[in-house]
Amino acid sequence: MNAVPHLITALSGPLLELETHLLKHQTIIEGWLRHQWLDTPAPFYASVDLRNASFKLAPVDTNLFPAGFNNLNPGFMALCIHAVQSAIERICPTAYKIIIIPENHTRNLYYLESLATLSNIIDLAGFEVKIGSLQHSEPLSIALPSKQNLTLYPMTRKKQRLVIKDQDFDPCLVLLNNDLSGGRPEILENLEQDIAPPLHFGWINRLKSNHFFEYKQVCQEFSQLLEIDPWLIDPLYRNCGEINFMKREGEDCLVRNVETLLDAIQLKYQQYQIKRPPFVIVKADAGTYGMGIMTAHSTDDVRQLNRRQRTKMATNKEGNNVTQVIIQEGIYTDETWGEQQAVAEPVVYMIDHFVVGGFYRIHSQRKSNENLNAPGMSFQPLAFAKSCTIPDRKQQANAQPNRFYAYGVIARLALLAAAREIAYH
Amino acid sequence: MNAVPHLITALSGPLLELETHLLKHQTIIEGWLRHQWLDTPAPFYASVDLRNASFKLAPVDTNLFPAGFNNLNPGFMALCIHAVQSAIERICPTAYKIIIIPENHTRNLYYLESLATLSNIIDLAGFEVKIGSLQHSEPLSIALPSKQNLTLYPMTRKKQRLVIKDQDFDPCLVLLNNDLSGGRPEILENLEQDIAPPLHFGWINRLKSNHFFEYKQVCQEFSQLLEIDPWLIDPLYRNCGEINFMKREGEDCLVRNVETLLDAIQLKYQQYQIKRPPFVIVKADAGTYGMGIMTAHSTDDVRQLNRRQRTKMATNKEGNNVTQVIIQEGIYTDETWGEQQAVAEPVVYMIDHFVVGGFYRIHSQRKSNENLNAPGMSFQPLAFAKSCTIPDRKQQANAQPNRFYAYGVIARLALLAAAREIAYH
Repeated sequence: MNAVPHLITALSGPLLELETHLLKHQTIIEGWLRHQWLDTPAPFYASVDLRNASFKLAPVDTNLFPAGFNNLNPGFMALCIHAVQSAIERICPTAYKIIIIPENHTRNLYYLESLATLSNIIDLAGFEVKIGSLQHSEPLSIALPSKQNLTLYPMTRKKQRLVIKDQDFDPCLVLLNNDLSGGRPEILENLEQDIAPPLHFGWINRLKSNHFFEYKQVCQEFSQLLEIDPWLIDPLYRNCGEINFMKREGEDCLVRNVETLLDAIQLKYQQYQIKRPPFVIVKADAGTYGMGIMTAHSTDDVRQLNRRQRTKMATNKEGNNVTQVIIQEGIYTDETWGEQQAVAEPVVYMIDHFVVGGFYRIHSQRKSNENLNAPGMSFQPLAFAKSCTIPDRKQQANAQPNRFYAYGVIARLALLAAAREIAYH
Repeated sequence: MNAVPHLITALSGPLLELETHLLKHQTIIEGWLRHQWLDTPAPFYASVDLRNASFKLAPVDTNLFPAGFNNLNPGFMALCIHAVQSAIERICPTAYKIIIIPENHTRNLYYLESLATLSNIIDLAGFEVKIGSLQHSEPLSIALPSKQNLTLYPMTRKKQRLVIKDQDFDPCLVLLNNDLSGGRPEILENLEQDIAPPLHFGWINRLKSNHFFEYKQVCQEFSQLLEIDPWLIDPLYRNCGEINFMKREGEDCLVRNVETLLDAIQLKYQQYQIKRPPFVIVKADAGTYGMGIMTAHSTDDVRQLNRRQRTKMATNKEGNNVTQVIIQEGIYTDETWGEQQAVAEPVVYMIDHFVVGGFYRIHSQRKSNENLNAPGMSFQPLAFAKSCTIPDRKQQANAQPNRFYAYGVIARLALLAAAREIAYH
């Protein structure tokens, strides 16, 4: 296992209490989660971006088509293998061959390294795995910086089955690693093979507000069980109707909601004696990749957008227009790393309902109230040194294994929200 | 993760070929095993003693109530936790509370350390766990050398339920870690709670010859699939009818079978040009703990047993009489460790159908044709440095991760034999 530097975090008051509380109620938490997975099975995989504001720990984004597997600690490989075996046994117990449908950005070497790691995990789990391409008509081999070689294969349909073109490869399971921001490709419709996660998990069908609606409900139940204030783990949010940033349509509704939300956060800050200014994040309701995202500390920040900022907000990944936004309570990131006090944001990875690891996005040029997952950003990944499944009650509540356990719990609450989102929306 | 010294092994010819073969067919092997677990689910847990003779790799004992969890690499804890969660989800998905029924030898600190580790794994997997005692009427707390404290609780029946006496602890699942060599305790009969593994897995009902009968069948199927000689992974065996060592009854049958088996091994040795003398192991058909075990290189070794040796052979753990024996092909242990060339025998641990780790029994006073798991023996445990689930095809077939993968495959074949033994006998 690689040695990984320790994370230096500032931690105080309510969050330490929360971590202590989670640690103390581990059996109840795990039992409750087990029951939840029986009702709504976990998605095939997910990554959850968390923000740790020392007084509050909450998810800000749940990705059902995770990349970044290459950033995980190689020491967790065996965990990933177990979890993939469990997931596939549940979804498609007779599967031998698996095809991965990746994102289309084949020039992004970071993404391709993640794809290679994901493919390795499935291969080592004992499946024959190939990567399909929605773009190429000939096989494309790419040499990666990690010295691995990745081949993308063109795909075709054989009646209701998706197969690799010109090869004897007829998979039992189609594993989506494409968030379908660009729509649902015709070639994937009405397959007789199982698709995991299902097509309707893609961003073309998904809304962040649905996710956080379910997350709120999950937090209510969880908080009742543990007798905590749900706000400690749940970011407040509002959503608007139709918005056109370029034509400034729907702006009044946006401004009104930003104001309402800032007031609501301020009230909670007063309750917990937090002396910092509240802020909100405005982002596209359907979409990912940190595009169309802005921070607002006041309604003026929304009213006074210049043309360039409006254009940025109006466009999503794959060039789609943003017509709906979600306004979410901004959560300060109080975790810093190294002498430079670089801002660090934990990302937790799950396969099936198992936490398999995570890493920190570390960014020295960003502030604690900014989004760290933005296009073109150059974060440093810092793999979690420990797994998120082994709390150590003999150590302090904020000791590393216990901090990671808390991350794993909150990430799984977001995973449960995703499971319900899929089942109910 | 603790650093663990490397194992120095002498390896040549057929086994290297076998390891290469297993590595090359990983996907087929894993797919085949997945199908097998659908037909006959794996036992809750097991440990398998392997012997590696450089020309042959085979199990010699399969323990369905494993101890020695404390000898596993602490770095594999997360794997154990995942696997326990999978096992319990399958057997008893609504379980919250679990009671462990341990062996009765509460003065064996090695066993108690294993029990503490097993209990920790289940606790960390998110279950409330207590250890029951079949012997004590009051709770008994024991301080362990590892600084942990273990409490054994007296149990009682509430109608058809097993509960902890004087405590509000009514478990959903009863986990047996007692091999029932001494019989089936009345208190465990006709429970409405699930018992895992089931009572009839105990040595009072189990016969080694049934296990190796099923193992032979498993090896036939596996060898056909992979086109190998099943003998490379399967120890030949014979069994006798009733034997009374003290009265020398049944001795002729024993001698005849020893002779037949030695001849059969000699034939295989000639085929593979192995220049060593064949030997057999005679052991109790029902029983464990390496009692009632002898090595024989000729029929004379059996005929010329002295009174002390006869007494030893005639008595089993818990003082039961040995009346049936199995005669098994002896497998040289060719793995040695350190400058002393101490003999090393791998033991592989599985929970559900997942390999979760293993260790080497290392014994500097024993020879390569002797049993390393004997009462009073003082072996040095050497935890596997790597998991058995991550072969590395870029390295040589006998590189450490690949050797461990081969161990994991053969151990799972024995696990499958146990699953069938349970289902069919």
